[in-house]
Amino acid sequence: MAAPDPRALATLLVSCRDRRGLVAALAQLLYGHGVNIVDADQHTDSLAGYFFQRIHMDLRELHTDRVALERGVSEVAERFEMLTRIEYGERQKRVAILVSKYEHCLQDLLLRHRAGELPCEIPLVISNHEDLRAAVEPHGIAYHCLPIDRDNKGEQQLRMMELLDAERIDLVVLARYMQILTPEFCEAYAGRVINIHHSFLPAFIGGKPYHQAHRRGVKIVGATAHYATADLDEGPIIEQDVLRVSHRDSVNDLVRKGRDLERLVLSRAVRLHLEDRILIHGNKTVVFE
Amino acid sequence: MAAPDPRALATLLVSCRDRRGLVAALAQLLYGHGVNIVDADQHTDSLAGYFFQRIHMDLRELHTDRVALERGVSEVAERFEMLTRIEYGERQKRVAILVSKYEHCLQDLLLRHRAGELPCEIPLVISNHEDLRAAVEPHGIAYHCLPIDRDNKGEQQLRMMELLDAERIDLVVLARYMQILTPEFCEAYAGRVINIHHSFLPAFIGGKPYHQAHRRGVKIVGATAHYATADLDEGPIIEQDVLRVSHRDSVNDLVRKGRDLERLVLSRAVRLHLEDRILIHGNKTVVFE
Amino acid sequence: MAAPDPRALATLLVSCRDRRGLVAALAQLLYGHGVNIVDADQHTDSLAGYFFQRIHMDLRELHTDRVALERGVSEVAERFEMLTRIEYGERQKRVAILVSKYEHCLQDLLLRHRAGELPCEIPLVISNHEDLRAAVEPHGIAYHCLPIDRDNKGEQQLRMMELLDAERIDLVVLARYMQILTPEFCEAYAGRVINIHHSFLPAFIGGKPYHQAHRRGVKIVGATAHYATADLDEGPIIEQDVLRVSHRDSVNDLVRKGRDLERLVLSRAVRLHLEDRILIHGNKTVVFE
Amino acid sequence: MAAPDPRALATLLVSCRDRRGLVAALAQLLYGHGVNIVDADQHTDSLAGYFFQRIHMDLRELHTDRVALERGVSEVAERFEMLTRIEYGERQKRVAILVSKYEHCLQDLLLRHRAGELPCEIPLVISNHEDLRAAVEPHGIAYHCLPIDRDNKGEQQLRMMELLDAERIDLVVLARYMQILTPEFCEAYAGRVINIHHSFLPAFIGGKPYHQAHRRGVKIVGATAHYATADLDEGPIIEQDVLRVSHRDSVNDLVRKGRDLERLVLSRAVRLHLEDRILIHGNKTVVFE
Repeated sequence: MAAPDPRALATLLVSCRDRRGLVAALAQLLYGHGVNIVDADQHTDSLAGYFFQRIHMDLRELHTDRVALERGVSEVAERFEMLTRIEYGERQKRVAILVSKYEHCLQDLLLRHRAGELPCEIPLVISNHEDLRAAVEPHGIAYHCLPIDRDNKGEQQLRMMELLDAERIDLVVLARYMQILTPEFCEAYAGRVINIHHSFLPAFIGGKPYHQAHRRGVKIVGATAHYATADLDEGPIIEQDVLRVSHRDSVNDLVRKGRDLERLVLSRAVRLHLEDRILIHGNKTVVFE
Repeated sequence: MAAPDPRALATLLVSCRDRRGLVAALAQLLYGHGVNIVDADQHTDSLAGYFFQRIHMDLRELHTDRVALERGVSEVAERFEMLTRIEYGERQKRVAILVSKYEHCLQDLLLRHRAGELPCEIPLVISNHEDLRAAVEPHGIAYHCLPIDRDNKGEQQLRMMELLDAERIDLVVLARYMQILTPEFCEAYAGRVINIHHSFLPAFIGGKPYHQAHRRGVKIVGATAHYATADLDEGPIIEQDVLRVSHRDSVNDLVRKGRDLERLVLSRAVRLHLEDRILIHGNKTVVFE
Repeated sequence: MAAPDPRALATLLVSCRDRRGLVAALAQLLYGHGVNIVDADQHTDSLAGYFFQRIHMDLRELHTDRVALERGVSEVAERFEMLTRIEYGERQKRVAILVSKYEHCLQDLLLRHRAGELPCEIPLVISNHEDLRAAVEPHGIAYHCLPIDRDNKGEQQLRMMELLDAERIDLVVLARYMQILTPEFCEAYAGRVINIHHSFLPAFIGGKPYHQAHRRGVKIVGATAHYATADLDEGPIIEQDVLRVSHRDSVNDLVRKGRDLERLVLSRAVRLHLEDRILIHGNKTVVFE
Repeated sequence: MAAPDPRALATLLVSCRDRRGLVAALAQLLYGHGVNIVDADQHTDSLAGYFFQRIHMDLRELHTDRVALERGVSEVAERFEMLTRIEYGERQKRVAILVSKYEHCLQDLLLRHRAGELPCEIPLVISNHEDLRAAVEPHGIAYHCLPIDRDNKGEQQLRMMELLDAERIDLVVLARYMQILTPEFCEAYAGRVINIHHSFLPAFIGGKPYHQAHRRGVKIVGATAHYATADLDEGPIIEQDVLRVSHRDSVNDLVRKGRDLERLVLSRAVRLHLEDRILIHGNKTVVFE
């Protein structure tokens, strides 16, 4: 059997209290509809008594149709009190990137998108500055500059949300956006905003983490991609990575070296989200790699 | 549901040509017998068209009994032309460690065993030298010294196989054993001998890999744990790891730093094997971590 | 010129405000005495305006003698207001290891010591429990058990300091000692007590860091070796390392995986100290690797 | 003393047979001319009996002038049979990048250059294809397309060398150029051509290393930046890095993941070269980080 076109695939995400028989019930249901399971990953958090599953499905030989399949899944979900979600490969997620003046994370996302690494559409980039317009528009992506001053912050975010809604955005990526989002924004896009923090959280929460790290004399620095929540730097962690530094590294060296971490970690987190590999549970993530 | 005692668990390993319906068939069968699936991991090698699965099962509420369960699995296995294997947690594997004169890997295995990290029994250590007797016997483990000279190699390995058979050994760990095994030995214990090679294979195949690495001026050295086969250094790779070196490192430094790699990589590979997380397919491994 | 016996080598450590001419002054002085510089490493912290140097010296062809050399170094030191220290390779540092009940760091140090990786003498191990006596005495090392109860903590540490003084201990290694040292102890042994903390400091300061890490859902855990100070977990960091974890790892898995980190990081820090590669400046270290 | 402008700095690189007194002679000479040593790093290869040094110098308070300084260095060099080289920070190296069709390494170099991470000028990019013209010209860099067919390879490389000579190129970077250079080219630019090989050399020498790695079933893949020599994949290694892979990774996954390695490793190697941190000795490098 040849590897199928990703557009013929779908992903079923499941989470619920752990109960006997749910794996079999789902497997049986899918088999009955002619779904071929390409890949399945599951995890039971025995402490929390919670069950998570990701099923990657080939729908090319579906006996029934999607409506019937979805109804079947709903019935099982109801029986086991599951949360379920089906994502179809043919529908690419729509992503908005928010930036300030730093280009490294933005460029990394745009180049990976062009290279086919990120299965999504990127209809727009929003910034509070004009600086990165020239980096964005040659990719055929709209660039919206919504400046912020002392008084218009709430208003600016409302305007931003209108743009995101108008473009039916599924995921907002804060690519070093450097602005705190309002609680309204965080709530409206809960689980759909990924931020990159330039430290190994929870070390160096807050501002200027490279300065903090330099002052503390750590031998390793890190970066953390997490879902944004109203509690700054406290959202569910998706991905982290680190690199070694030494007494020879100035704050500027940490900033330079850190840029490589930030873009790698952010891009990995975005890809994991786009491929429907992440389940959020409370303040933690289950990431099926 | 509390995390069950590992002794109440069992592992079912499956490999076969990829075919529709096999996941559902197994899930249904296990459910029918009252098996609770604690954890399941699967992989489809779409290039080779091959399917691999590891199911970690809780048998405490089995409706039937093990004989019935095994028969049920056999029937599904036959239908789908699967290779299957059930390992019961209550039966610990029996491990023999083979050493020459280096103690670091041996000590690491013994200390981890004492700390409860390696679920196995270690009834004996075999060496061609007396040197490590004092490191072994305080652990209550028998130490057999079977010296090798120019003429007795085949004979020595026959004697070794007798010891292993007498002790019903499931896994042989070459903890820097430094002797080439006869093809007869490799065949008799195919898939049940783990060797540690002190390089990042396939770089620096053969003898004195740290000297080779130093001569080539690499910036990273590694270690590789693999199943031993008659083709030296060519067996299926289980685990590898590396560390950075520089022009400052002499061959002795590489040897010293490498010891840490060797023992970590070997211990990880042994643990993966003992937890039935490895499936061998051709010259490669599927490792369900 | 063959690599000299380490016992014929000495190390000169220098720190001072950065000033012109000090490198030349020292180089000239050493040359004048017939010292051959095997290796020299220097660092200027241009922010703090501070200079650090480590000179590894071969004294086999000294024209003068050590008294004259030391006097010469003192004169240069006075001229440039340097702090200097000469450590002779022939004099091995004397190390005491403090433990509670965990054996992994202790065993690692003892095995490395036996393998010749740690250039020191280890005359004694002190514990507040009897548990690890059997791990220590076969190495020919004295084991002192000084129990602690609610009331005798200050007294116990005084008794400990008497033992350390009596044995002329140069370095105290807290190999998961699990007890807080009194400010008197920290002061008496300032810069001579190395502790291992089982987190990537400054994340998860305080108790039960693996539990904290699990609760926060981090994707990487770490360990930190630092000099002990009266401010708990705040002393100058010597060495850190990390490893990846996932949602699959329970607290117990973190503890198990962390043990490998702890012993590697602690042993590296101890070796760096024994080889006189660390200069402390304020709350940070310069580590000449 | 404030951190000086990099343009006021110079680097002195030294290599010679190890001899007594050379460190003092150089330190004394530099001091006599009013040079302030910002940073000095040295290495003695005791096996080869060879000495290497990198001295980073602040020339702002030179008593004499550069001609006198260079003459002084030459005299010491002659006395000790040293190879010496002085590189002035104010003169940026001129770099040509050679590419085929892959853009990831090229883009990475161009973006880092724009971010000020790479202290050099990049007057031109040469390719045997037209594909990457649009990625280059917006940076204000000339793009030369010199196609290759079966018959014109030698001629094409001659034409390339003319372009490089005309632009007084100091360093040629093969950013996945995918063409073998003629021995004449390698000789003319010995020590001045950096190539990126997409494997952990010396594993998987030759073509399609990711395919080779996938076939062998390694658990780690790597990338290697090295100076190009007439012996393909055998030149002095500058930098290497690796990342973990598993049975889940297809060849395409290795290619994708490897792109990140390739660009990181190549950019690091280029930066080390531009900062005059590399000394080549035989087939190995001394890299002063």
